[in-house]
Amino acid sequence: MRRFLALFLSAAAAATLAQTILSPEVGADRRVTFRFRAPNAREVLLAREGAPRLPMRKDEKGVWSVTTEALEPDIYGYTFVADGVSLIDPLNAMMKPNLLNTSSAVHVPGPASLPWEINDVPRGVVHHHFYKSGIVGDQRDYFVYTPPGYDPKAKKLYPVLYLLHGFSDDASGWTAVGRAHVILDNLIAQGKTKPMLVVMPLGYGAMEIVSRSAPPLRDPKLRQRSFERFRDSVLKEVLPAVEKTCRVSNKRADRAIAGLSMGGAESLYVGLNALSTFAWVGAFSSGGMGEDLNASFPALDEKANAQLRLLWIACGREDRLIDSNRKFLEFLKSKGVRYTWTETGGAHTWMVWRRYLAEFTPLLFR
Amino acid sequence: MRRFLALFLSAAAAATLAQTILSPEVGADRRVTFRFRAPNAREVLLAREGAPRLPMRKDEKGVWSVTTEALEPDIYGYTFVADGVSLIDPLNAMMKPNLLNTSSAVHVPGPASLPWEINDVPRGVVHHHFYKSGIVGDQRDYFVYTPPGYDPKAKKLYPVLYLLHGFSDDASGWTAVGRAHVILDNLIAQGKTKPMLVVMPLGYGAMEIVSRSAPPLRDPKLRQRSFERFRDSVLKEVLPAVEKTCRVSNKRADRAIAGLSMGGAESLYVGLNALSTFAWVGAFSSGGMGEDLNASFPALDEKANAQLRLLWIACGREDRLIDSNRKFLEFLKSKGVRYTWTETGGAHTWMVWRRYLAEFTPLLFR
Repeated sequence: MRRFLALFLSAAAAATLAQTILSPEVGADRRVTFRFRAPNAREVLLAREGAPRLPMRKDEKGVWSVTTEALEPDIYGYTFVADGVSLIDPLNAMMKPNLLNTSSAVHVPGPASLPWEINDVPRGVVHHHFYKSGIVGDQRDYFVYTPPGYDPKAKKLYPVLYLLHGFSDDASGWTAVGRAHVILDNLIAQGKTKPMLVVMPLGYGAMEIVSRSAPPLRDPKLRQRSFERFRDSVLKEVLPAVEKTCRVSNKRADRAIAGLSMGGAESLYVGLNALSTFAWVGAFSSGGMGEDLNASFPALDEKANAQLRLLWIACGREDRLIDSNRKFLEFLKSKGVRYTWTETGGAHTWMVWRRYLAEFTPLLFR
Repeated sequence: MRRFLALFLSAAAAATLAQTILSPEVGADRRVTFRFRAPNAREVLLAREGAPRLPMRKDEKGVWSVTTEALEPDIYGYTFVADGVSLIDPLNAMMKPNLLNTSSAVHVPGPASLPWEINDVPRGVVHHHFYKSGIVGDQRDYFVYTPPGYDPKAKKLYPVLYLLHGFSDDASGWTAVGRAHVILDNLIAQGKTKPMLVVMPLGYGAMEIVSRSAPPLRDPKLRQRSFERFRDSVLKEVLPAVEKTCRVSNKRADRAIAGLSMGGAESLYVGLNALSTFAWVGAFSSGGMGEDLNASFPALDEKANAQLRLLWIACGREDRLIDSNRKFLEFLKSKGVRYTWTETGGAHTWMVWRRYLAEFTPLLFR
């Protein structure tokens, strides 16, 4: 192996590989062992998505390790926190990209019936689009999932879901981490979800909001500007481009908008203020709705019920945002707006959001 | 900022951000400062793509740093080697994904004329396809770049370049790291490169070849099996799917194949053995052609000259593979096969390959 690798890699890299340790190692019993070489670190913790941090123990070769208990089949983000610094697992190519906190990811495989497992079913395509936004003033991107059998030359028009990521994700979040394309492929193959396009735009109207070097962002004006310009970029740039180039219906009954965390708040903000555009709205573990809900939803009242085919709001009981979600339900009640409330287990994690997507999309366009 | 972030992130993560250090920091003078907190490490080195390792120095807060000299405008991969372990920069979201060596990346911006700079020009689309390979027996993927203005409903047929990544890359390598889509957008806008589709398949016919936990791969049989099954998957699965679903010509004069490193060797192996399929072949910094060239190219002789529109071979003088490339030129000479040889500065790096792509694509389909 060394000789072969040395053709392509530096000698040092090839040598490292040859003496490599394995991480993560998923056992048949679904216990997972994580290993990380850091001979001089004083403390290394395993920080796994949605779980308390676990101390790791160092062996005589400087390799820290820990073995979890049996984990539910799922995909988990994790980092190693070495003397206070979060690091990805250098032995694992599976990543959970993020603008502020890149993590590693580990897949604990489960039965084929789990919606995020890759199965031998017809597969859709994920299209990555790039454009200059006149509204935000930068070069940005969005992703479009087209379902299996989608034919740009055919006459059929599909319904479309606008699916928004959370704070610190980028436009790839719902596919790279959320596996939205895999989930849709599976649910469509099972006949549970109607074939639809899914449009995944970049969720910031002001990129400063995710800049590390930005001055403190206490100013709610920045949040408001980001939400407003995001709304405008979706409604005036992304949506018209999608409707021009893709075989999607332009009827409100065929358009949905949903998102997670910040994207949940954006779905409510964009969707409930544009009911002539969207008939279906979903908000998963929403956060960042703002303090003054009357100001954010000035025209919302019981007339919305005639236009809304579904307003689906979900949050996990261990999510610190559950109180603000309940507060939002109270606001809706005070306005006479009907909604569907789904309270589940789980915290503010992708394990929850993949399940919400699998629960939400079968309800759409019925 | 803390309050806003705390809505979405753990308190610890928000606190870390609030006291954050900056890395990498690109100065107006194009010197780059890298910073990495590792209070107990004994040695931290900066390993930058194509450059000797630089020692970093620790301050009283446990932050290691180093400032480079002025760098040429480019995109550089790098890691921090902390006590012998290569780690990405936890403060930088820009990644260089790789199956064996995930790195961070830093962009030193340059003039708009550099082919990898994102400009305000019409943009193509990158399509991510998924399929079950009957030949390799796994679920795999490929990417297709369609140029600006590509219309699946129009009659026009485009030429197509099959573009292969190197050992340890995945199918996203040429876009995520190589910026092939940006390079093509720019060169097409300048009228230098003909509008074409670019198909970027996964370059392994046997995934064991890139597995960390595999037994040593000294066996040339594994290399051969990977090359053969890769060839079959491209010719019998990917190419027919592309020609069925995309507006591409099926004439040999409209098909090219090129790649870097292992992908260069695969381009030679697939292309020169299938001249009824490809008229244009490019090999960038090729490696892994195998020991017995007569066995790999059994039918190659001067009759190839009538079929080959271009056989473009390039390598950097600081690349350790330059000798095997020169040996390959001798082989071609001995067979009477004409080629174009481009010897440049540079080593086995993406900085070289982005330039090769910008130099190669304008020659195609003329």
